[in-house]
Amino acid sequence: MRVFLIGDVISQQGCDFLREKLPAFKRENQIDAVIANGENSAVGNGILPHSANFLFDSGVDVITTGNHVFKRWEIQEYLDEHPNLIRPANYPEGCYGNGYYLLDGGNWRLCVINVQGQVFMDALECPFRTCDRILSEVEADFYIVDFHAEATGEKMALAYYLDGRVSAVVGTHTHVQTADEQILPKGTGYISDLGMTGPILSILGVNPENIIRKMTTHLPTRFTVPDTACKLEGIVLDLTKQTGKCNKIRRERLV
Amino acid sequence: MRVFLIGDVISQQGCDFLREKLPAFKRENQIDAVIANGENSAVGNGILPHSANFLFDSGVDVITTGNHVFKRWEIQEYLDEHPNLIRPANYPEGCYGNGYYLLDGGNWRLCVINVQGQVFMDALECPFRTCDRILSEVEADFYIVDFHAEATGEKMALAYYLDGRVSAVVGTHTHVQTADEQILPKGTGYISDLGMTGPILSILGVNPENIIRKMTTHLPTRFTVPDTACKLEGIVLDLTKQTGKCNKIRRERLV
Amino acid sequence: MRVFLIGDVISQQGCDFLREKLPAFKRENQIDAVIANGENSAVGNGILPHSANFLFDSGVDVITTGNHVFKRWEIQEYLDEHPNLIRPANYPEGCYGNGYYLLDGGNWRLCVINVQGQVFMDALECPFRTCDRILSEVEADFYIVDFHAEATGEKMALAYYLDGRVSAVVGTHTHVQTADEQILPKGTGYISDLGMTGPILSILGVNPENIIRKMTTHLPTRFTVPDTACKLEGIVLDLTKQTGKCNKIRRERLV
Amino acid sequence: MRVFLIGDVISQQGCDFLREKLPAFKRENQIDAVIANGENSAVGNGILPHSANFLFDSGVDVITTGNHVFKRWEIQEYLDEHPNLIRPANYPEGCYGNGYYLLDGGNWRLCVINVQGQVFMDALECPFRTCDRILSEVEADFYIVDFHAEATGEKMALAYYLDGRVSAVVGTHTHVQTADEQILPKGTGYISDLGMTGPILSILGVNPENIIRKMTTHLPTRFTVPDTACKLEGIVLDLTKQTGKCNKIRRERLV
Ligand SMILES: [Fe+2]
Ligand SMILES: [Fe+2]
Ligand SMILES: [Fe+2]
Ligand SMILES: [Fe+2]
Ligand SMILES: [Fe+2]
Ligand SMILES: [Fe+2]
Ligand SMILES: [Fe+2]
Ligand SMILES: [Fe+2]
Repeated sequence: MRVFLIGDVISQQGCDFLREKLPAFKRENQIDAVIANGENSAVGNGILPHSANFLFDSGVDVITTGNHVFKRWEIQEYLDEHPNLIRPANYPEGCYGNGYYLLDGGNWRLCVINVQGQVFMDALECPFRTCDRILSEVEADFYIVDFHAEATGEKMALAYYLDGRVSAVVGTHTHVQTADEQILPKGTGYISDLGMTGPILSILGVNPENIIRKMTTHLPTRFTVPDTACKLEGIVLDLTKQTGKCNKIRRERLV
Repeated sequence: MRVFLIGDVISQQGCDFLREKLPAFKRENQIDAVIANGENSAVGNGILPHSANFLFDSGVDVITTGNHVFKRWEIQEYLDEHPNLIRPANYPEGCYGNGYYLLDGGNWRLCVINVQGQVFMDALECPFRTCDRILSEVEADFYIVDFHAEATGEKMALAYYLDGRVSAVVGTHTHVQTADEQILPKGTGYISDLGMTGPILSILGVNPENIIRKMTTHLPTRFTVPDTACKLEGIVLDLTKQTGKCNKIRRERLV
Repeated sequence: MRVFLIGDVISQQGCDFLREKLPAFKRENQIDAVIANGENSAVGNGILPHSANFLFDSGVDVITTGNHVFKRWEIQEYLDEHPNLIRPANYPEGCYGNGYYLLDGGNWRLCVINVQGQVFMDALECPFRTCDRILSEVEADFYIVDFHAEATGEKMALAYYLDGRVSAVVGTHTHVQTADEQILPKGTGYISDLGMTGPILSILGVNPENIIRKMTTHLPTRFTVPDTACKLEGIVLDLTKQTGKCNKIRRERLV
Repeated sequence: MRVFLIGDVISQQGCDFLREKLPAFKRENQIDAVIANGENSAVGNGILPHSANFLFDSGVDVITTGNHVFKRWEIQEYLDEHPNLIRPANYPEGCYGNGYYLLDGGNWRLCVINVQGQVFMDALECPFRTCDRILSEVEADFYIVDFHAEATGEKMALAYYLDGRVSAVVGTHTHVQTADEQILPKGTGYISDLGMTGPILSILGVNPENIIRKMTTHLPTRFTVPDTACKLEGIVLDLTKQTGKCNKIRRERLV
């Protein structure tokens, strides 16, 4: 079974580029399932029904999110109605939406889990215990965790904690792809960050001058996404049904 | 001119591995200067005269550091006496040591600058203004900035801010090598993080069970560095003397 | 029923002053129960069996703590053996010690609950939900919550959340007594911070020059507690048995 | 010389209450100068020309601010044109407005300085050094510092650092008045926080249910200011012209 995981898709520019590249990539690489982080897919940050629909229509099977998921109130109802758009599972009980999705591929079932880190971020529930709970509740052939977190130490800690119990743990949120893709000792695939899908000449998708102004003046600054050449970053995982483990992990950057 | 930059060297294990690999690598790759981040080179964290000497004796020309530089009081005097061991330049005036070092290669002079980020870290002086100040004070053919910082956005912001004015900006501190090495539009080489030099099967150099225990119990936990196979991570930069700019950047991982 | 709550007792100086002042105060004010925060009662920070015993022997019935509770490993076993020394209840399950204590006064039972904030602090469990859980599990005439937290907004939010369901919510951790003691609309007594017990001319109990050096140089600095005149800060609560509510709250500062 | 310092004035409700109470209080207490923190005086947060004018017209001589000063772009030009509306002096050079104001009372000159803390806040310039710089630049009979900061330790550190060199250091930002008003050993008046001016039954001026919802659900939540009975909190300082020091400090709460 082969899964393609795509880093944070930024605004309409990222969505358009994904639509341009994804179909051929899926065909040529015999991808069985596509997961993309869409927490910044809306124009102006967050995610909207429009941008979620756009990603689904472009070939994404499951959309994960992160700390920006609730930025736009229009997504609240949509989250309840579209179980394959998920939000971090460690948000408090009773929140809109769900923290995992069971994708049924006919002869396999893949459980996609989204959790958020606690270091330098909002104090949600403990992501370690949240994963334990979901793993004990949901039966599937494969489990993939999108760990939306800032600190490399926390990302690796969850990956080692889940090693051998899930197919892969992939990081998102920093928007910078890391070069540490690997298979952990007990068979779990891992990368600290998938990277992002959006303008190459940008700071995490945003115009460099916006970020520089903000950081050097501390003045409120409007962020814009440049209309320049894009990249799509992610990883391809090969998973083995008998074991549920990862036998290959490969970084991708489409330009 | 060719420079080799090495990510955070962890404890005696990292130091020993560096000594094993560096000499041959320098010879085979015709390296003119070696810079390594040594803020965690001492056994038990921080940096000590012993570990600094060990790195210099192994072929490192300039040691940079970061937020752990002052962990051990034994390094205070050493910092004042060894100008090629530097600490972040944006520590307050009057601190031990210096924030940059001018390495004289005979027919070139390379200014190595160390600065620390402000996002999710201690509030030192503004790293943007600190770099401006040093660039206006120090004359050199090449300037390389080790930006010891947590947030990817801040790292890239400083790099774009200095683009065309320095030879390279390289990030350290997260201990995870990123896959975004690039030459920015105006000629500055860049990578968000060099990675680290120490045990491969570890979390940022530390035994995974230590970090997992700490994060899941919130109890004080003693960190140990496993005695297992190591890696050495960094980048090789090719710099052009006429322009002071970067014409090639290549990621390295020696195992 | 009358309870005396005492702010963070600092080192041996604070302990000695408490022993000097508490017995007469109890007698003169007809105090039925004494609760003191002891997370910094040990010489050199944290709490030790010695300092806990000293506080109990001086007339304290229940010791609460906070983020420093586990600083000294010697307290681990003691926590399990002395249920009237409690630690924040929102530490992960399985931690040493307990998060509440039921004090039996013969004709009344007082449940003392300790919880820790999440804003600007470690990401423990949600303190709101932790309190809900304990309130539903433990039957008592009175409930008093020591909320060890940094942010005033979070402290008041928990107090309003519990208003009418507990006798009082008192803040600790900032070591500065606030002037906002009040009875909330539904009958819960409240103060944002009890203050501290230790040297008057100090910064949160520590020598001012230590803190100033640390903040202006960012160098590691040894903290000492001055041997100068002390104060003991806290509040006296009058509670009504029929309702479990607070009918009087009075700030105290003994010098 | 007698100065009245007023804690953060919240929205139109706080402004109206200030206008109702201030004139009589000034007259009855022979107040020579009034300083109020206005960073949240606009309806919907921040400060606007309208709310600043309203405060000036109500008898405020100098308005200080804090981390919310730049929330509304409409205030930018106004800051440059009205030197008695100040913002934290440790914002980067070149920002709108000024960090201090010299109030001329005829037979005295009072320099009001505004600085912001670094702990748990944005990384502005070092507030200690910023104060040093202003004190060396500006000649006046009295200096009063509004230190807009979160952590009690940082507030007291600046006060002890400036003890004997300024007339008073008063904290703002936590919106909760502290009970630690005092005159430091070398003559500087001090309180950790002035408190606020706005609805009594609120959390820092905001409807309690808004804050509770935000903290327990982590969902974006609209904050409203209740239209209920208000308080005005602050302190009255008596200053001696010969020494520039404080000889009396008294907490006030008008209801
Ligand atoms: Fe994102
Ligand atoms: Fe994010
Ligand atoms: Fe490091
Ligand atoms: Fe570091
Ligand atoms: Fe404490
Ligand atoms: Fe504490
Ligand atoms: Fe405010
Ligand atoms: Fe503020």
